[in-house]
Amino acid sequence: MDDLKVIEIKKSVFADNETDANNLRKELKDKGIFLLNLMSSPGSGKTTTLIRTLDLIKEKVRVAVMEADIDSDVDARKIKDATGVESIQLHTGGMCHLDAEMTRQGLDNLDLEETDLVILENVGNLVCPAEFDTGSVRNAMILSVPEGDDKPLKYPLMFSICDVVVINKMDVAPYFDFDLEKCKEYIRMRNPEAKVIPICAKTGEGVEAFAQWLLDEVAAWKVSE
Amino acid sequence: MDDLKVIEIKKSVFADNETDANNLRKELKDKGIFLLNLMSSPGSGKTTTLIRTLDLIKEKVRVAVMEADIDSDVDARKIKDATGVESIQLHTGGMCHLDAEMTRQGLDNLDLEETDLVILENVGNLVCPAEFDTGSVRNAMILSVPEGDDKPLKYPLMFSICDVVVINKMDVAPYFDFDLEKCKEYIRMRNPEAKVIPICAKTGEGVEAFAQWLLDEVAAWKVSE
Repeated sequence: MDDLKVIEIKKSVFADNETDANNLRKELKDKGIFLLNLMSSPGSGKTTTLIRTLDLIKEKVRVAVMEADIDSDVDARKIKDATGVESIQLHTGGMCHLDAEMTRQGLDNLDLEETDLVILENVGNLVCPAEFDTGSVRNAMILSVPEGDDKPLKYPLMFSICDVVVINKMDVAPYFDFDLEKCKEYIRMRNPEAKVIPICAKTGEGVEAFAQWLLDEVAAWKVSE
Repeated sequence: MDDLKVIEIKKSVFADNETDANNLRKELKDKGIFLLNLMSSPGSGKTTTLIRTLDLIKEKVRVAVMEADIDSDVDARKIKDATGVESIQLHTGGMCHLDAEMTRQGLDNLDLEETDLVILENVGNLVCPAEFDTGSVRNAMILSVPEGDDKPLKYPLMFSICDVVVINKMDVAPYFDFDLEKCKEYIRMRNPEAKVIPICAKTGEGVEAFAQWLLDEVAAWKVSE
């Protein structure tokens, strides 16, 4: 086969994830590395969105990707092939989320000297990943139109912890009963500060707004105390 | 408000879920009650599929519904209003799955004397619910076209434990790169015995095949030893 790195993630031994996540965030800050935690349901278009985003940012920032999945390695391979960006696959072996220690196991397999930004694509799941701080600087999520505009009502924690909600598959909105204004209102109920960015990853429409948000966040964080 | 029953589910105290699930299955068998565990991702159309199915079976079998959700009660209300079928809401309080003891807490709030079939709509999640036997006689899942045909590769356990895979939103297949034959092949890799039923819950197309499968399973199980 080829040289794709596939890391089998081990269960964490630390009981206090919150402390561990804060420590990891501090370590990454000292190294000048911004970690983005990207979450969503299965099939919302995380990987396609990521490929589009990487194409827009890879000349401007040194970026690497960690793809978490229960079993397969299709996503890391797809990203590496499509963008040339360093991508490794994290196998969770059935575990439904990543915590800070599991994230660290992935980071240990990246060349951090050459990296400003690491994007972690978390396990496809709107429940468990929301409960575990990965040590990321920012949390982003993708909600896709076919999932429905009522998801912020049903998965409150996920929406409340995300700094940005990308709404994908806007091109098929006419075929679904998806009300963008209603969805924004529900998101605001959970999280008045969250930025909402409608996109269509398939065509690339709107992705530049997400890419710009990410570049701005990385730049602001680099100069922060 | 109205009389919708909302049950706050407590964390299980039993360590051995497998034994507990087998006990629950036996108790339900003694009472002549068939439990179906219905799982899927968020937004795959579980509730709409259920409403269509209930309309087709409610005159033929005495059925009740338990809607598990982290927080809201929109689904149980929707089902009760649309079909008149007894529906209760189970709040998991952030928990990402139901085990047998949690299922039992829901069953205790139904009028089981008047019921042949209980359908449990599990939490929207392709990971954790697959790991916990609820005590059900059969497991069903819904995969929707927009989620992609590769999901059996990424969520192997879920597909391997399901007796039937309903593929919903077939009406939008032309707008997505969804290959039904490829999807069936991936499902067979995980579970050669699984029945695959393509439907469109929005229009009702194909739902009668799922309803018939369910009626046949209930009838066969009633006369089984």
